[in-house]
Amino acid sequence: MIKPIGSDELQPRFVYDDAEHDKLSKEAEGLPSVVISSQAAGNAVMMGGGYFNPLKGFMNVADAMGAAEKMTLTDGSFFPVPVMCLLENADAIGNAKRIALRDPNVDGNPVLAIMDVEAIEQVSDAQMKTMTDKVYRTDDSEHPGVAAFNSQGQTAVSGPIQVLNFSYFQTEFPDTFRTAVEIRNEISERGWKKIVAFQTRNPMHLAHEELCHMAMERLGCDGLVIHMLLGKLKPGDIPAPVRDAAIRKMVEVYFPPNSAMVTGYGFDMLYAGPREAVLHAYFRQNMGATHFIIGRDHAGVGDYYGAFDAQTIFEDEVPAGAMDIEIFKADHTAWSKKLNKVVMMCEAPDHEKEDFVLLSGTKVREMLGNGEAPPKEFSRPEVAKILIDYYQTL
Amino acid sequence: MIKPIGSDELQPRFVYDDAEHDKLSKEAEGLPSVVISSQAAGNAVMMGGGYFNPLKGFMNVADAMGAAEKMTLTDGSFFPVPVMCLLENADAIGNAKRIALRDPNVDGNPVLAIMDVEAIEQVSDAQMKTMTDKVYRTDDSEHPGVAAFNSQGQTAVSGPIQVLNFSYFQTEFPDTFRTAVEIRNEISERGWKKIVAFQTRNPMHLAHEELCHMAMERLGCDGLVIHMLLGKLKPGDIPAPVRDAAIRKMVEVYFPPNSAMVTGYGFDMLYAGPREAVLHAYFRQNMGATHFIIGRDHAGVGDYYGAFDAQTIFEDEVPAGAMDIEIFKADHTAWSKKLNKVVMMCEAPDHEKEDFVLLSGTKVREMLGNGEAPPKEFSRPEVAKILIDYYQTL
Repeated sequence: MIKPIGSDELQPRFVYDDAEHDKLSKEAEGLPSVVISSQAAGNAVMMGGGYFNPLKGFMNVADAMGAAEKMTLTDGSFFPVPVMCLLENADAIGNAKRIALRDPNVDGNPVLAIMDVEAIEQVSDAQMKTMTDKVYRTDDSEHPGVAAFNSQGQTAVSGPIQVLNFSYFQTEFPDTFRTAVEIRNEISERGWKKIVAFQTRNPMHLAHEELCHMAMERLGCDGLVIHMLLGKLKPGDIPAPVRDAAIRKMVEVYFPPNSAMVTGYGFDMLYAGPREAVLHAYFRQNMGATHFIIGRDHAGVGDYYGAFDAQTIFEDEVPAGAMDIEIFKADHTAWSKKLNKVVMMCEAPDHEKEDFVLLSGTKVREMLGNGEAPPKEFSRPEVAKILIDYYQTL
Repeated sequence: MIKPIGSDELQPRFVYDDAEHDKLSKEAEGLPSVVISSQAAGNAVMMGGGYFNPLKGFMNVADAMGAAEKMTLTDGSFFPVPVMCLLENADAIGNAKRIALRDPNVDGNPVLAIMDVEAIEQVSDAQMKTMTDKVYRTDDSEHPGVAAFNSQGQTAVSGPIQVLNFSYFQTEFPDTFRTAVEIRNEISERGWKKIVAFQTRNPMHLAHEELCHMAMERLGCDGLVIHMLLGKLKPGDIPAPVRDAAIRKMVEVYFPPNSAMVTGYGFDMLYAGPREAVLHAYFRQNMGATHFIIGRDHAGVGDYYGAFDAQTIFEDEVPAGAMDIEIFKADHTAWSKKLNKVVMMCEAPDHEKEDFVLLSGTKVREMLGNGEAPPKEFSRPEVAKILIDYYQTL
């Protein structure tokens, strides 16, 4: 099996030992504590599950700047984005060397992790700007990732953490949330050797399904890990149980036995386009995938990134040898009326736009809302049925 | 896939809808609440995960008596044990029709479930005695299951529940805890058709491994679900991460690809022997297993049960047609020095005790503690190494 990044075995920061977990939970209640940002909480959850291996905790400013500027920490190791715990101020910490990090996303702000504080530093305006410029390729405060990053504060508290739970991700998505440890375990049990991971946060229509089939076939993969970003929904989003059911039905009907698994991870979307694509590949290696699908405008938002920036960054900016996972470069896929099958659009250079069956998200939602299945060239009927049933309940 | 008991699809009592879950969590804080017994909490977790399908909540006294006396509820449906929420008193409930059930096993007693109260009844001493006599086949207060049952109180509060979390089982065993929904999903993904489940709470030595191989081969199963009872440890027990690692290593090395999965469920052991065996089979059907291994003195304790009572009960007492899952009847297995392989002891009638390689638990722990691997006829070296490494840390 492909090795994790930076160590022979995963070193998740969750405290698995029961007695130690009890001890730390009790200790945490007596420690000075801070409610951390949602972004920091997502980072803690990812470190807890082994996804950010070998990171042991939140970066200090020098490491964060290294990650932002050249994806390289001060010790020379590779990490594609800053992983910071930024606060408005550190008043509640004082001189404490050990603190509890409280969860902003769960009622009552329970302790998510304990941190051994190594440094408390002020991040200058210039450093904040450098980081957003490098990570998000913009400092535009309209960019949702930049806005979220800048809203946290400029006091960086850093040091290793011990994670005590997986926030609301595990409790609200009990059947879908997986740690990197679990996915590695299951890949091992299934006997898969070549595994491609697919990022999604939505139900999958035919184009997505066929993209996965294409990647598996061309790469010779025996396994596909559908890996959903879990998180709080925006109004209008498909609820998690419906999305899961639709994806599971697709796997059941259209994938051979033991060729696909449906899983999710807990993290806040950065919308950092190319940099986020590198991070996405990073943690897919840690969960045991050998390949990762990156399509057009991966993890992008608005017009901030070029259509294929999230692919070219792997040649242009990722240090050579930093990762073993390989990228499967994809374009949008769609049904070709000429060829009567789903094709990758860049591979049909003779096609005009009208030669494809293309439907906007708005149009699809409208059809489903009217109880109307999208054409079979767009949606599998079994999947459409689940989504239509859901829209009828609204 | 084998159907759940009592309905075409699993109807887990966990609240999967995010918005509904948030709403109920908030509502719960304003409801009258009671801290329930550990046994009731385990029942709630099982109902949350779909294992006790189609139960919707805690039984009233008539249903509980029916379950105890003839495994049949007042509506004629089958359930092998009473599933009760017994309290010392109902003072905190008053006339409330909707209450919060608080978790006795988690610090701060967070709400585990909401109940719509249908009845509050006093259970008479005679009824308590009937139930222990029937379920545990004794009313001996030395029996750990009887003692736990009787320690709860005699006020039964009953009604359907909505489950909000999986107690400490999911949070402390994040890589192993599974709902019945998850196991069904994974069986479907793996494409298994004939699935045998194996109950354990300890690391598995060669005899257990070979028992699983025997069951799979004789039944023609394509899948094995190793299903661990998770729970608080007793002093001297192997910690969960070590037990998991030992079992996972065994699967990795000694089971073909895609033939076994390692999972766990959250419940308190009843030590009810035969009745618990029926319950064990019941919830294995709900998680999608077609077969279940029941060995000598399954779920027993002390000398309360005959060696094979947990097998004969299926013919003698379980109503015909109550379950579709089939029992794989086993005896102890052990290495035969005569035949140079692991055999089922009842199938080697010419063997004397000395013809087998038998080691007591005490002896095995002593050897492992001394850094000594048990003989290869008893333990796989890869498994022994993990256990020895653990004992060296003590």
